[in-house]
This record gives sequence, structure tokens and C-alpha cells, in this order.
Amino acid sequence: MSYHKDFCWLQKKKLKNHPFNNFIIKNATSLHETLKKEVAYFFEISLVEESEASLILEVKEESSIHPEGYKITAENKQVRIISSSDKGLLYGVYHLIRLFQKTKFVEEEILSEPENQTRMINHWDNFDGSVERGYAGKSIFFEKNSFRRDDENNELYARLLASIGINSLTINNVNVHKEESYFITDKYLNEIAHLASIFRKYNIKLFLSINFASPIEIGNMKTADPLNEEVQEFWNKVTKDIYDVIPDFGGFVVKADSENRPGPFTYGRTHADGANMLGRALKKHDGIVFWRCFVYNNHQDWRDRTTDRARAAYDHFYELDGEFNDNVILQIKNGPMDFQVREAVSPLFGALKETNQVLEFQITQEYTGQQKHIFYLVPQWKEVLDFDTWMKGKGSTVQKVLKEYPAKQKNNGITAVVNVGRDENWTGHKLAQANLFGYGRLIWDPSLSSDSILEEWMNGTFELSSNGKEILKSMMLNSWDTYEKYTSPLGIGWMVEPGHHYGPNIDGYEYSMWGTYHFSDSKGLGVDRTVATGTGYTRQYHDEVFEQYEDVATCPEELLLFFHHLPYNYQLKSGKTIIQHIYDTHFEGYEEVERYQVKWKSLKNEVDETTYLNVKERIKEQLQSAREWRDQINTYYYRKAGIQDKKGRTIYS
Amino acid sequence: MSYHKDFCWLQKKKLKNHPFNNFIIKNATSLHETLKKEVAYFFEISLVEESEASLILEVKEESSIHPEGYKITAENKQVRIISSSDKGLLYGVYHLIRLFQKTKFVEEEILSEPENQTRMINHWDNFDGSVERGYAGKSIFFEKNSFRRDDENNELYARLLASIGINSLTINNVNVHKEESYFITDKYLNEIAHLASIFRKYNIKLFLSINFASPIEIGNMKTADPLNEEVQEFWNKVTKDIYDVIPDFGGFVVKADSENRPGPFTYGRTHADGANMLGRALKKHDGIVFWRCFVYNNHQDWRDRTTDRARAAYDHFYELDGEFNDNVILQIKNGPMDFQVREAVSPLFGALKETNQVLEFQITQEYTGQQKHIFYLVPQWKEVLDFDTWMKGKGSTVQKVLKEYPAKQKNNGITAVVNVGRDENWTGHKLAQANLFGYGRLIWDPSLSSDSILEEWMNGTFELSSNGKEILKSMMLNSWDTYEKYTSPLGIGWMVEPGHHYGPNIDGYEYSMWGTYHFSDSKGLGVDRTVATGTGYTRQYHDEVFEQYEDVATCPEELLLFFHHLPYNYQLKSGKTIIQHIYDTHFEGYEEVERYQVKWKSLKNEVDETTYLNVKERIKEQLQSAREWRDQINTYYYRKAGIQDKKGRTIYS
Repeated sequence: MSYHKDFCWLQKKKLKNHPFNNFIIKNATSLHETLKKEVAYFFEISLVEESEASLILEVKEESSIHPEGYKITAENKQVRIISSSDKGLLYGVYHLIRLFQKTKFVEEEILSEPENQTRMINHWDNFDGSVERGYAGKSIFFEKNSFRRDDENNELYARLLASIGINSLTINNVNVHKEESYFITDKYLNEIAHLASIFRKYNIKLFLSINFASPIEIGNMKTADPLNEEVQEFWNKVTKDIYDVIPDFGGFVVKADSENRPGPFTYGRTHADGANMLGRALKKHDGIVFWRCFVYNNHQDWRDRTTDRARAAYDHFYELDGEFNDNVILQIKNGPMDFQVREAVSPLFGALKETNQVLEFQITQEYTGQQKHIFYLVPQWKEVLDFDTWMKGKGSTVQKVLKEYPAKQKNNGITAVVNVGRDENWTGHKLAQANLFGYGRLIWDPSLSSDSILEEWMNGTFELSSNGKEILKSMMLNSWDTYEKYTSPLGIGWMVEPGHHYGPNIDGYEYSMWGTYHFSDSKGLGVDRTVATGTGYTRQYHDEVFEQYEDVATCPEELLLFFHHLPYNYQLKSGKTIIQHIYDTHFEGYEEVERYQVKWKSLKNEVDETTYLNVKERIKEQLQSAREWRDQINTYYYRKAGIQDKKGRTIYS
Repeated sequence: MSYHKDFCWLQKKKLKNHPFNNFIIKNATSLHETLKKEVAYFFEISLVEESEASLILEVKEESSIHPEGYKITAENKQVRIISSSDKGLLYGVYHLIRLFQKTKFVEEEILSEPENQTRMINHWDNFDGSVERGYAGKSIFFEKNSFRRDDENNELYARLLASIGINSLTINNVNVHKEESYFITDKYLNEIAHLASIFRKYNIKLFLSINFASPIEIGNMKTADPLNEEVQEFWNKVTKDIYDVIPDFGGFVVKADSENRPGPFTYGRTHADGANMLGRALKKHDGIVFWRCFVYNNHQDWRDRTTDRARAAYDHFYELDGEFNDNVILQIKNGPMDFQVREAVSPLFGALKETNQVLEFQITQEYTGQQKHIFYLVPQWKEVLDFDTWMKGKGSTVQKVLKEYPAKQKNNGITAVVNVGRDENWTGHKLAQANLFGYGRLIWDPSLSSDSILEEWMNGTFELSSNGKEILKSMMLNSWDTYEKYTSPLGIGWMVEPGHHYGPNIDGYEYSMWGTYHFSDSKGLGVDRTVATGTGYTRQYHDEVFEQYEDVATCPEELLLFFHHLPYNYQLKSGKTIIQHIYDTHFEGYEEVERYQVKWKSLKNEVDETTYLNVKERIKEQLQSAREWRDQINTYYYRKAGIQDKKGRTIYS
């Protein structure tokens, strides 16, 4: 395995002063070879048979440790990693690597178990090699409707994911096009099986995004009705064929009845009918279905101010709670809209009691700067997981809900659209790697702070002085705030160029069919989602949350315009009016990016040249883009409200 | 020749009660066969040798009639068409056909001579078969980077053009892509020559759009500098090669230094340097160059309110007046912007005294409804030709300027981007054919009224009752007014979707680099192009016109916001405020399209079913689109100005 790629946080050279001379593996089965290879490679020690080895990896089946968890202890110059399965040993090894990347010995007993059972990555890769919402080059898996078969790269990628705890993967876009529909057939199953065999070595199960209309598209049938017996038979056969070649195949991810994708609605059936049909076909093979809840009317009339896209997922799925089979898992985006810079948390979390769920994040920076803008996403995700749904009183955070409801679930967890591509640095630029790393670490252990995750990532990635670390941290940790400041204000969202979603276009979605409006007029802006005078979306939350959002006085200000339509002269807690807040934040955000330039320049001698120049280029583009955001937003509101900036700065008239 | 196409205004069946038994052709040379074929076909009579033939076509070289003009006389049951060349006879024959299409005998002597020498059609067809700004199917000439060789169709098209007096043609897009650059080489010259041979039969000279960077792109050279001798030699060889196979080749059309096309600016040369180089190469073969004046900064900063795209053509070319060779002809769009629904007339007309010129219209409905909206363009063109430049005092109309300046010019005239494609009806729907027909008729004889041209076209095309005629006329003759009403108000333009230019997007070009702004704010809108307080564009006109435009009180109201930035409460001559005018016209325009539906329905039994259904579909789309225009514009201004509609109609808030 040659490390031709800039191998980010898994850099062997960063391992320091470890005390190991040799190692032993006890009772590992399928992952034995992987464990052996990884330990030997990273620590440059040999596998031995003696029980006095300095590093011991041991499966104790009778242990109460979670099969993917691990305990690390140090005693008598021996370090021991124990788990109830060899999966846990693998994650323990990566933990050890992280420890020695920060030159820290094993000082106390470490017990780590994953908080989420499903820890998944979704690729939106198309078979032609393009990546939907991809900003790091073309697909690592596909090119021109064929499999790239870059086994070396795929294995690098598998261990990258394993090192942060990922255990599930889809390789193809949820928008399943014609040729990709054949992935589940003989035509491509050998290729899929080959990929599965690579990821299997790192405890990652392969899933496929499938086309709900497959019975028609590839099965030569006239219907895809989930209650039709022939359709059911089609799926039974499909799953059998898959499991014949991939016995541990994960299952399906489905985008149905969403943004023009086919689904059960065509046949007057419910999402439960559709999902359960697939669930039944997979059940006998222990497979599962992820059924996406990103369902809304995408032919809305902008004139209609009563329909509210934010309501859609809840309105569609809440009433089906309890109707889904136990191997069907609803996949719910973190917010009710679509991965905006700032939006409320989906009210489905805390509402569904009898339904398996995974939460879906977006690591790829679609609305968040497309890997040209620095944006460390972990703080945003953390805020979502920590959000209190009040499902069972105070403290019913999203993470707790995911873990505890429904009672016997075993696959709840988190998934995310990934940000990697064929770029030499995987993610467009090095700093964007922190989002992939941080995603894995956070969903394994949501109690970790954004800061400590960042620190772990920096330890693995760079050789920074402590001053350098502080500088980079100061850029990354306020990057959400910075981006939010120069883009759309106070939770309103959607002021981007339609289609590609990069750069400002304030009215770009204002007269569209997408249900994405800000309703700015001469007096004010915002979407009234209250029960009292608006769309009633606030009522989808439990009382305590509802009351907070419903009342403009208690609504968190970062979401103020997400929930309320307010006049430009409305006074915020800062004492500023909304219009002055818009002006101020837009100037501040731009100025912060100017400081990024200075800060990054000061790190010139602390990072490799390729990374330095690459990030420098990105920040230059970010600054240019932030300038457009600042000026277009400020001018737009100045022209609309006719109110002067109190500080007399340049707003183009 | 099988008439598989719906052959519009050249329908034989519409010829009524003609008195001819036979015909004779005297002294015709190259067009003899064409004349013989057309007369025999349309009148179903035979060519004879007797001088007492009932129809006599005769070239009298000594005659003072313009070589393309004709005289038609009737005497002793003999009708006689005379010209000084057989070109004139061809146009005379088509005149005769038109006469008998309206069942009118030759009652008096008719003398008709073309007012414009160049009467040209420009295709924006790409070699791949697409048509830039084409709304009638794919290219009739090309498909997948090859020539379609549909000789039958091409000949149909040639006579269609000849029947309305067209004598020049380009077949390829002014944006000359890679492969099209080779049209001027051996690779494709035989194909071009074959096309030329078809159009030659109908007195139409073939021209090619060329790539100014050809010496680099296809000549393997390092420069395209017009003052470089090798570059000049390249073009000398190219023209020689062309004329070797097409002795009557017309010449080149060039879009240079425009919208990212290469040009002489790259080498620090002037447009005159570039155009004259090509002119010299063509001169020895009697070829000519059309050099387009559509040159402006397309990377403008929207923040900059001093730069004015409208100024660009004049600023670039006025100072070069007198520097162009006599076979170089500047091709100037009718307005200073880009074929908008309403804009001022280009101030270059009346400014250039020593430079050959053709005026460029757009028959294809780019900004004018894309052949989905009914829009009879002749009234708009007529207004341009009748516009008084005051070049030599009152009465110096654009048409007069084109004809009389410079003194010895022999190729001035008019060209236009055509609206035809591979659709069975040539132009997307039947009513759009009136624009092609009307274009040819108008530029032959600009004294014709829009109404009489429309009547001629209807006579050739339909079998309408006199009531039916009035109904269709009422739709067509007010179609400009209707479209203008529901789209952008008072000459402001550009409120379209960027890119494809269909449908409303009020701010679509407002923060762009294209120099196309309306500057709407909370108080008013419009572009201040005055000398007193604006960009000074008004000063590009002669005093009388300048003064009229400069003063808001005398500025024609349909161009009010093209020249002035005015408050919403500015009172128009109607007594209405601008904002009320916006509301009113937008409701009225939509209502007019509703009436189109009723009117067209009333013609159901007067037109063939295909045409009926086809146009019905288009009007349905037009109504839907007009609704979007109405509501988006009204809502946009209601939100921006905060002023209620006085009539209390529904404006979505």
C-alpha cells in the first residue's frame, strides 16, 4: 500500500515515542488480518505469540463491553485493548494511534463505546463519475458508467472511515439514475461485491441507494406498486441475488416521492407501504432500509403563504409513527428545510416514538461554502444533537431520543452526505478534512467538544506550534459564525444562486416553486411560522419548545426570521434594529475573512507548501465571495428599506 | 419537390383566378431555370416561345430599373415583368404570386425597387445541430457536427427567403466554436459550396461567420494579430481557397472582442485594423466583411453606476468613423443594449458618416417571448427605421441614413437573426412566420405599413373570412403592446431569467456583470442616462434628440425609465403615477392574453387543425407566463415601494 495521497490525520510520522516492542492478538476472527496490518504498519512492531507482549489486543466474548466499544488499560508496561468483538479492537487501535499522535501515554483506563449504532456515510456519486453537490473532484468509485476499481484508494478510504468509527456506507447517489438502477442486478453485482469485500475488512457494511421504480425501469414490469405481489416478488428476488454474492450486505437507502423521484404515492400507497415492502424483502437476510423523510411539495406557488415546506416532513411522517417494520429506519435531515447555514431542528426528533430513526447531516458544504469557504461544521452538528426536544421533559436531547426510542431499536444513529472526491487531498482542501474527521468522532461520542475534536484532528494532521494551533483554532471555531454573518441573516436562509447554491442571489428562490422564501418587503422580512398568525409550524414541537419559538420575545435570535416576520426597525437584544444588525454582521463577516488571510499567512512556515497555497487560494476566493455577499445583501436591504447605515459605511445605492 | 413542410405564405392553392395561359422568359441568364420552374409550378402554365404569351418576363439591360427591382404592367391581356437583370424578374414573380393570393388583378403599373441593398438573414446555428436562441427546433443545416444535406428542404428555404427579397445569408452562429472554425478550410468547403449552389439559384449569396482567432485555432499560428504579415497571408490564402470553389461567395460576418470572443484588442489593435485586414483579403474577390458592433464590457461591477453598457457601441466605433475600408460594413444592432422589448435606437445611426452600415434586427424572439408568446415584430422594426436621427436636420430617419451614408456605399442595408428551425412549421408556430415574412417585406419597402404586410402574409397563409382577418389582425397588431405591458415597464428591460432569457426574474440581472440594471429601490427605479446627473449616454444623439431624451418632460414615456431614474409617485401624462402604471399595465397585459384565447378559439373553423391546436397550446403557455410576469412584477414593486394598488386588485404580498 503506497501512501500516494496526502493521508490527512492517519499520518504514521506523527506517532511519537510509543513504548511498544511487539504485539499479540487474541481471539480475533474476521478482522484479524486488518488488525495485524494496521498495528504493524503504524507502530512498526511485530506480531508475536508471547503473552508478555507490550501491546495486547484481546477479544473477550463474555465481556460486557459493546461489540464496537473497547477498553484500554495500561499495567506493568503492558497496554491492553479489550472488547467483546474484534470490531471494538479495531476502533481501539485507532484510538491508540490518536493518543500517541498527541504524545500522550495511556495514563488511565479508557472505556469507549459508540453512542450511535449506525454511523454512516452517504455518497452522492453518480455512475458517470460526477458527484452531486461534490466539491472535491470526481467520484472515487465511478467514471464514465464503470467502476474505477482503484482498490488501493478504496482501501485507503476504508481505513480513513474506520479510523473515525464509520460502520456503514452507500456508494451511489440517492437520486438513482437509469444505469445505476442496475447496480442491484447481475450486471454489476460482482463489482459491488468486490467493493464490499474491501470495506468489510474495516467493519464497514455496504448499502446501495435504490430506485423505487426499479420493477418498471429494470424489471420490465408495468407497476412499482408496493402492494402488488409481482412487485414484492421482484424485490424478494433482487435481495436474494444480492445476498447470494454479498452475505453481509447492509441494505437499501431510498429517496422516494421526493423532488420528482418515484415512490408509493404514485399508487395511492403510504410511505409505510413502500418502506415495509422493502423491509420484508430484506428481513430474511438481516438487511435494513433507510427511508428518507426529505419529502415536500416542490411545485409550490410562491403566492401561497399558507403552505410551509418546513412542515412537510412532520406532516408526512408523524401520523405513520408505529407503522414501520422494525428493520425500516426513517432517515431525517437535521433541519426541516435542507442543510441551511442555520435552521431549526427537525420536529420529527422527539415526535416519533415507535419508529427507528437516523439523523442525516451534510458534510459536503452545499449551502455552506462548497469547500471554498472555511466552515468547521462540528459546532453546528453538536448544537443539533444537544437540542432539547422535551420529548420526556427537560434533557430529552436529540441524541438521547436517537438512542432511546423506540425501545428495542438496534440501528438508530446518524448518517451524512460526505465531502470526499478524487482530489489529492480528498476534500478540496485540507481544512475541510476536519469535517469528515469531526463527523465520525462526534457521532461516536457526542460528549466530545468541538474544540477537542479539532485538537485531535490537528494533532494527526499538522505539526503546529502551540501558537499555530491557537491561530488555526480561532479560524475554524468561529467559521460558522463568520459564514453566517456575511450570508443570510437571522436564520432566514436560501439567498443563494438557484441550482448550484453558491454565492448570493437574494431573490433567487423568492418567486420559485421550491417553498423557500424570505418575504422581504419595504417594511420587514421573515417567515411567520407561528400558530397565532403564521403557518403553525411551531406547533410541531413539544409545548416548551413551541412556546419558546411562538413568542418573538423568547425565540432564539439566530432563528428569529426563521419563525417570525418582523419589521426592519425591530429591536434585538443587542439594542440594534434588525436592519442595523444586517449591515453590521455583513461588514463584520467580511472583515473576519480578511483576518483569515492574515492568520493563514502566519502559518506559512508551519504547514506544508501544498496545503499552504491550496488554502490560501480558497481564502482568496472566500474573501471575494464574502464581498459579493456583503454588498449584495446590504444593497438589497438598503434599497428595500431605505434606511441608512448608522455607521455611515459604504453601501452601494 | 414534395411540399412536406407546411409551406406558409407560398401556398399554390391560394393562387386564384389568374388569367395566364402560358409564359415567356426573355434574356434571363443564370436565374432562367429558377424563373421557369417557379412560374410553371405556381401558375401551372408552360413556357412558350411566342411573343404573344400572356405572361412575359423580360430582362432589359438598358432599363433604368434597379437590377433587383421590377416593373409589372398589364396591357392587351398581357402581363409583363421587366427588370434590368433577371434578379428583378425573380422578385417580380413573387410579387405577382402575392397579388393573385389576394385575388387582385394587375390593375396599374407597379414599380418596385429595394430600399436596402443588403437584405440579409443570419443563422445562429451551431454545427452540433443546436441553435443559439433558437425556438423552432434544431438547425436545418447541421446535425452532430456534420451537414444534413437536406437539399430539398434547403431549396424550400431558399425560395421562402427569395420570395420576401432576401439576398444574403449566413448559415452559422456568430459565436464560432472550434469545429465551425474549419468551415473556411478544405475540410468543409465542398459542403459550403454545395449549399451556396442551392441558394445561388434564388439570388442569395452565402456568407460565413468566422472566428477571428482562426490563425491560431486552425492555422497553427501563435498570433491572430491583424498587423502581422503571416496572419494577413493566412487570410489571403483562406479567401483564395474559398473563392476557388465559391466564386460568388459573399464574405464574412465577425463577432470580435465581444462577450469573450477573440478580436484585435488582444493585440492592442483597433476594430478598424481587424476589419480592414479581412476586408483587404476579400477585396480582390469582391467579398465584403460585416463587422459587428456588439462590443461592451461584460465584466462590469454592478456597484459602478457610472459605466453604462448603452454607451459602449458608440464609444467604441464613433471615433473610428472613416477608418474602415469600403468593403467593410459595420453591423449595428437596432438598439444600444440587446434586442429588448423596448429600447432606444442606437445612436451610431446618424453618427457614422463615412462608414458602411447594416442594421441588425432579431427575428428570433429571444427577449420577446421565444415563439411561445405571440409577438408581431414588424411594428417595432418600423419604429426603428422611422426613427429620426436628425443627422441632417428633421427627416433624417434611420432608413434614410442607411441608404444615403456614406455617399458611394453599395452594400448598406439590414440583417437579422432568423427564427427558423427544423419544426414542421419552420418557426415553432404559424403566427411567428409573420415575422420572417414581415422582415423581408419591410426591409425591401419600409414604406409598407405593418398592417398591409400582415394582410399580405395572411392572404398567402390562411383562408380567413374578413371577420377572421380582423380578429387575427387585432391579436397581432397589438401583440407588442400586450407583451410590453406584462413584462418590464417603461423601457427598463432585462427583468428576465438570466441565461435563457425566458420568464420573469426581476433582480436576475441586477447584481450581475452584464451591465443590465434597473436600480429599483424603495423610492423609485430607472437608469439615469442624462448628461446632467447620469451616465451622459443621451449626448450620443444629435442635439434635437439629446434634448428630448435629456429632459424628463419631453422624453417619450415608453422610454422614460431607460433614460431616467424616477420616483414611484412620478406622475405620467396619463395622470397615473409610475407605480400605478406598473400595476395597471401588468393587469391589462394579462387580460389581453386572456382575450387572445377567446379570439383564437373563434378562429377554430377558419384555420387548419394543426395550426389551431399548435397556436392554442402556445397561447396557453403565454397566459401562464404572463400570469407569472404580472404577479412577480406587481409583488416585487408592491413589496419594494409599499404602495397599494388604487384599484384594490390582488397583488400578492
